[in-house]
Amino acid sequence: MAKCFYCRNQAVTFRPYSGEYLCSSCFLKSVERKVQRTINKYSLLEETDIVAVAVSGGKDSLTLLTILNKLEQRFNETKLTAVTIDEGIKNYREESLKFAESVTSELKIPHKVYSFKKLFGYDFDEVIETLREYGFDKSSPCSYCGLLRRVALNIAAKDAGATKLATAHNLDDESQTVIMNFLRADYIRALRTGPKLEKIHPGFIPRVKPLIEIPEREIILYAYFSKLPLHSQTCPYAQDAFRNDVRAFLNKMELTRPEVKYNILHINNRLRSVYMNLEAQLSLNACIECGEPTSQELCKKCQLLKILNQIKAGTHKT
Amino acid sequence: MAKCFYCRNQAVTFRPYSGEYLCSSCFLKSVERKVQRTINKYSLLEETDIVAVAVSGGKDSLTLLTILNKLEQRFNETKLTAVTIDEGIKNYREESLKFAESVTSELKIPHKVYSFKKLFGYDFDEVIETLREYGFDKSSPCSYCGLLRRVALNIAAKDAGATKLATAHNLDDESQTVIMNFLRADYIRALRTGPKLEKIHPGFIPRVKPLIEIPEREIILYAYFSKLPLHSQTCPYAQDAFRNDVRAFLNKMELTRPEVKYNILHINNRLRSVYMNLEAQLSLNACIECGEPTSQELCKKCQLLKILNQIKAGTHKT
Repeated sequence: MAKCFYCRNQAVTFRPYSGEYLCSSCFLKSVERKVQRTINKYSLLEETDIVAVAVSGGKDSLTLLTILNKLEQRFNETKLTAVTIDEGIKNYREESLKFAESVTSELKIPHKVYSFKKLFGYDFDEVIETLREYGFDKSSPCSYCGLLRRVALNIAAKDAGATKLATAHNLDDESQTVIMNFLRADYIRALRTGPKLEKIHPGFIPRVKPLIEIPEREIILYAYFSKLPLHSQTCPYAQDAFRNDVRAFLNKMELTRPEVKYNILHINNRLRSVYMNLEAQLSLNACIECGEPTSQELCKKCQLLKILNQIKAGTHKT
Repeated sequence: MAKCFYCRNQAVTFRPYSGEYLCSSCFLKSVERKVQRTINKYSLLEETDIVAVAVSGGKDSLTLLTILNKLEQRFNETKLTAVTIDEGIKNYREESLKFAESVTSELKIPHKVYSFKKLFGYDFDEVIETLREYGFDKSSPCSYCGLLRRVALNIAAKDAGATKLATAHNLDDESQTVIMNFLRADYIRALRTGPKLEKIHPGFIPRVKPLIEIPEREIILYAYFSKLPLHSQTCPYAQDAFRNDVRAFLNKMELTRPEVKYNILHINNRLRSVYMNLEAQLSLNACIECGEPTSQELCKKCQLLKILNQIKAGTHKT
């Protein structure tokens, strides 16, 4: 293989979108610089922030934590704390919980686990079992899990006294989401997609995505070269056919147009900045039941719990 | 098959996005109503318009001409005229030119043919031959043809005294273009994509797309049930890999989400209406060479002709 673009050592990887050959050490530094640039470019973090990092224990979140921990050394006042959501998915979450535990303790970062069971009264396994028994199968399990996880993360971040919540969404995740929003004509969700979701409600911890410009492939390489543990189990519920189709399409497009995922991010940012006059549509209320920020009167999490409770009690009417 | 939703006769087609079964006669009427609704919704045409219809002789343009001719009966003052661009592509354009001729004469609509050769001095075959000899192969032939055709159509429409130029872009074409603009991060072109392109320059004939909400599949059916001649030849230069990939993706998406192409149109219209404050970026100049409207100083058509002339004269420098 060719020589590293920076140090002339043996290169181990190639970036099709920039034409760079990189050795493992320069590759790691380059990814870290890129994350720092993303943070600066979109003003994701400030020096005085207390950052709750959402750590599932998968490759993306462990990479995010590792990089933010390195960058934090330069900023004395920034504090990192890790929060993990245990959805309660058997034969899946156990391994990554261990990884989250071991990496946070190695990096000496405070870490707290919040379970769906404790927060909402149901394991995710129970949620799906209950819904399936009752014949609900319209939405993919991922959408139910996602809505509960979002609420859980906001509660966890508030509990940790955080001023920001950092999630590990990467370039692939984000470009897929932008296209999915587009194909669904969901411009409200499109407005909520991007590197940073501001404090749109007093009870809402602003969310930032420092890995948004890092391709998934580079995160896998980063985790590998950094000797981070690699989660081997896949979620038994993962079956988002829509996302899978969009992923396959973008990966195909990328073969001949290496910059395509960046283009999608770029135009979405551009559009968001233009239609920010629609921002009023983003404003949230406090849920009348639980007080968490929501665009509804009763938040979607409480709507779901209400249905689950009714099913359990045999009082649900469709 | 099921019964027609409107008249209870034997249905011959089904619309996945609306759930309607239709007989051939109700199907034809339904498509015509839909075109009329598109015209009203986006204010594409006014009663006093002189409409130049771009008729290549393919299924889309013959369908457009047939429908506009029917709708025109109700509006006494509207005048239709047909213009055809003969690019000069051997073994391809001959057949459709005949069809354009026969359908316009049957409908008694004035018809005029404009050739690349007469307008620009080169057949499209010569353009490509010259560029290929010289080693140009970066862009697909379609993009060169498209830019020349756009200029030719504007000249033809002006020559016909038209106040509008109607083209036969259908739902599939348009949704593909929106996604392509998106993947290229080309928001300027995105602004120019839509049901109507206003008079952005005194020398520019506003363009309208009355078939923009009709799926390609329904246009083929409309042409078939209306006994319009069906062009059997495909363009020897057609090889737009990018569009082909996007088409395949959207057609796959449509199988499980029948409304997806309409969603794309919808969100693009929504976005366009929001970012119209960027409209200044759409303003055009007169080309310093030919006077046709252009966003450049020297229009792209004149840039291309200059290169062709230089290649011919042996004076081109890369």
